[in-house]
Formats: sequence, C-alpha cells, structure tokens
Amino acid sequence: LLAVAGSPPDGEVWIGDDAAVVAGPPTLLLAADLVVAGVHADLTLTGVDDFGWKAIAVNVSDLAAMGGRPLHALVTVAGPPGSDLDRLYAGIADAAREYACPVVGGDLANAEQLVVSVAVTGTTDGGRPVLRRGARPGDHLFVTGPLGAAAAGLRELRAAAAGPSAGAAAPLAVGANVQAHARPRALPAEGAAARRAGATAMIDVSDGLAADLGHVAEQSGVGLALGRDHIPVAPGATFAEALAGGEDYQLAFAAPDREAVAREFVTAGLAPPVRIGVCTADAAERSLDGTLWPPNLRGWEHEW
Amino acid sequence: LLAVAGSPPDGEVWIGDDAAVVAGPPTLLLAADLVVAGVHADLTLTGVDDFGWKAIAVNVSDLAAMGGRPLHALVTVAGPPGSDLDRLYAGIADAAREYACPVVGGDLANAEQLVVSVAVTGTTDGGRPVLRRGARPGDHLFVTGPLGAAAAGLRELRAAAAGPSAGAAAPLAVGANVQAHARPRALPAEGAAARRAGATAMIDVSDGLAADLGHVAEQSGVGLALGRDHIPVAPGATFAEALAGGEDYQLAFAAPDREAVAREFVTAGLAPPVRIGVCTADAAERSLDGTLWPPNLRGWEHEW
Repeated sequence: LLAVAGSPPDGEVWIGDDAAVVAGPPTLLLAADLVVAGVHADLTLTGVDDFGWKAIAVNVSDLAAMGGRPLHALVTVAGPPGSDLDRLYAGIADAAREYACPVVGGDLANAEQLVVSVAVTGTTDGGRPVLRRGARPGDHLFVTGPLGAAAAGLRELRAAAAGPSAGAAAPLAVGANVQAHARPRALPAEGAAARRAGATAMIDVSDGLAADLGHVAEQSGVGLALGRDHIPVAPGATFAEALAGGEDYQLAFAAPDREAVAREFVTAGLAPPVRIGVCTADAAERSLDGTLWPPNLRGWEHEW
Repeated sequence: LLAVAGSPPDGEVWIGDDAAVVAGPPTLLLAADLVVAGVHADLTLTGVDDFGWKAIAVNVSDLAAMGGRPLHALVTVAGPPGSDLDRLYAGIADAAREYACPVVGGDLANAEQLVVSVAVTGTTDGGRPVLRRGARPGDHLFVTGPLGAAAAGLRELRAAAAGPSAGAAAPLAVGANVQAHARPRALPAEGAAARRAGATAMIDVSDGLAADLGHVAEQSGVGLALGRDHIPVAPGATFAEALAGGEDYQLAFAAPDREAVAREFVTAGLAPPVRIGVCTADAAERSLDGTLWPPNLRGWEHEW
C-alpha cells in the first residue's frame, strides 16, 4: 500500500506505523463499504484495477450522498496469493487521486477470494450533512443525471463475452455504458451543491432508483410520486434498467426550492439536476404517473 | 450491524444512513486491520464470537501502540450465507463495549470465506502520538506484560483438539493462555501511560517481540540489546513462544526515563512495565545477553 499512499503533509503520518495521524475536522463523516470479487464485479468482464477503483468510488459516493467530500481512506485487501496487487493498487490509486482521497493505512492478508474493504473519513466543510430522513411532503425530487448506464454496460459486456467473438483477442467494446459499469463515478461536487441548495434528504443510487428512493421515503415518512417521462434514461439503457438497475451512483435528493437547486448547480459549474417527481404526504404512496409502482422490479427488494 | 451500534449522542448519526456523522478531534488516528477465518483464527478451535472480538481488539491495539484510545469503529463483513452473524456481532459488540469504541457504520456481503475488516478512529487527547521511529540510543526498552500466552494457548487448543478426547462433548480447557489466544486484550490505558511517560517509540506485539522490536529498531535507526532473563514469559509458555509468538498485543516501547515510566503507570493504577533491555547506537545490533539474536525464530520474518 506504500505505493498508493503518496506523501503526507507536514505533521501527518500515513502508512508505515500502527495508525495514521491526520488532521480531524470538528464534524467527521465515516463510511465503509466492501467489494467482493464475483459478487460486486465479474473479473472476467472488468479488470482488477477497475475493481480497486470501484472500492474507493463507492465509498466516496456514500460521502457525496451526505453532501460531503472525502479526506482519507483506509484499505484492507484479502486475496489469493498471485492476485495482481499491482494492478489492483493502480486502480485504487487512480480513484484516490481523482477524488483527492489519499490512502493513509490498511492491511493485507491471504484469502481464497479477493475482498477489498475501504473505510473513508469525510467532511461537509462546516455544512450540515444531508441525511436520508429529512424529506418533507411537497419537496421536489431530483436526480443528478441519467440512470441505467451501469446496468446497460454490464449487459453489453455479458453479450460481448457470450457473442461470436468471445474469447478472441479483440478487445471488448468500451462505450460510455461499459465505462459507467467498470469505473463508476462518485459525485461529491454534486452532493455538496445539493446540500448548499437546501436538500432535505439525499441518497446515492447504488441499488436502483426504486430501492434507494424507497429508503428515503421510509426514513423520511413521505410518499413518492414520480413522472415516468421525467426519469432520465441513459442512452442505450432500457427504462427498467434506469428504474431498477443499481450502481449508477447518481445522487437522488429532495429539496423544497427548485430555483435554489438550479442556481447552486450552475454556480458550481455543474449540469442542473433533473426533477423527477415530488414527495407526498401519503407515506405509503409509490406512484409512477399516478399508477402504483411495479412491485416486481429488481432493486426494489432490500439487500441481504 | 444495527444491533451492535447502540444509540448515538445528540447531534451524531450512526448506522442507517450513507455515512456516520461524528465529532472529530483536531488530530485523528486512523487504522484498519482485517481478520480472515482460517488465516487469523481457526474457527474449529475458537468461536466466531471470539473472531469478532479479535477484529476489534487488533484495531484498538494499533491505536494503543500510538498512545491513543478508540473513538469509533466501522465494520465490514464478508462471509458465506449461513454464517452465525448473531454470534459474530455479539463478539464485536463485547469488544466495542469493552473498549468504548461504538460501531457506527459498515457493510455486509456474501463471500466464500469469512472476512471481517475493521477501521477505527482514535485520539491521543491532545498528546503527541508515539510513532515507531523515535527511539534513541540509550533509551530503555519496556514491555507491558508477559509474552507467549497467546502462542501457548493456541498450542494447548491444538493439543486438546488432537488428543484422546478430541471430538467428545467435553469442552476444551479454557485457561488463561487459551483466553489470551481467543480474546486478546488491547491495552490503550498502558499505551497512554507510556506516552505520558515520554515514550519515544512504541509498537504492539502482534508478530512476536523479535519481529516487532525489529520494526522499531529499523524505523528508529537504533540497535537492540535485550537481557534474556528480563523478558517476561507467560506461565505455561516457552521462551521461544515469548520471543517469537505473535498476537499477545502487549505493548513494547522505548523511553529514556525509567522513573517517569514507573510513576505514570502506578499513577494510572497499572502494573509497571518490565524493562527488557536498551536501545544501542549500532543500528545493526540485535543481541540477547550480548549474543547475536537467533536468526531462525518464527516471527523474525516480515509478513507477506
């Protein structure tokens, strides 16, 4: 991990001692997520460097969903001897650089299966973290960008692997959707803009829009009324993939003031988020164009 | 993990959102260690609750070795469906309570093998963290208590499992050494006392005294001259187990002032640490009673 870490600023100690020593802000965000080879990524379809990237990105996305940005990461790796750790660490280092989230410590052990666990600290720079539970009836619902890209990318990769040229030397097509699946992007700038715009609740779309907005609705005690034509579908993705495909890591949030939202995103140089519906007072409501939400969508179920 | 977490103080958010929100001290310690079933513990000999305990304790020990104490823990678990998560979490909760280190977040996923990764934040309450690299020639070397107990306990468990009553319903003997192996104790109070006493370098004995003091010597640029008769051997352990057996989690540290060390430990109500030798100016020296350190001891080698 030494190679991933880089050099600490004066007064800090990173990898190489029993613990890292870093500056702590008054309010700290803490999150941890793990990725398991064969469960969270099929390493016959994407690279082990992509796997490392993803381990960092999903954690940064958790901070983004609070309106925060990362400060430091800790990385533990369990894997079979012979794992391509150099390539894994290269992907971790890519993401650590991209999100200004240096890896300051960690651990490595033998295991039968590759498991990368990342913990991150983060900050909202003095702002109030945006929880899942603050949405109110009448709040507008937004999503930061098109959905379904990662699901479509995985579908494309599987089709290419099963197709006539499978196993040939020709590289698999790497379009935008494949990239969205292989190297999902966390959106801390968008999360901070939403926070500054007065977002009352926010979540990252990791399990699918339906499932994740469901968490917001449950924890906030509000209903959800979405407009089908307002949900932005990534080019090449189906509507079902947009509504139920996970791992897009777009942010979904509730906010009372549409103009404030547009203003904060534009001020930050970001594309304005898409309004997809509204929070309602009937906490049981889950409607799409006024019709009951299809109950059989993937992603609606809670994770194990 | 909800059951493990308990209730956060006012203004904090723990498990149930994208990230936890906690108060951060100005200087933060960060550490992460993982335990893998079959690698760090033989779950035919010790319980999965002990495994959970150990995952927390080894991290608290890393903080103790900086002179710090834990603030919060994040726990990720990868394991086969059917793992006894209730029992695992019970052991995690025991340790979290024991070390006042609440679990504020985490993640759970399927995997072929049980892997528990823990990340902790910690603080030295305004004091300067004790690194591995500050020891100077002439500093006394101390260890906080007897060594070899965990190695002896593992030997006892293996003998009992292989013995005539193996497989019988009779419980394995649970003596002090077995307990030291199954539920190792981290020593944050001792680490803080050593810090206050002016410790110049400190490490926890996880890989064996020889290996771990070797890290201190390398990083500090000092030699080590130990006295064989001064090294405290746990009752029932061999000298080789004391010198090379890992996972005792006693603290080994260097400090210039013997009286200050005794005073700080007594003031804190702790047994005074045992002086086992001295740091020397010859950075290559590794001697025991003036004789070259045996090179073939387990624990001398660096970990993978």
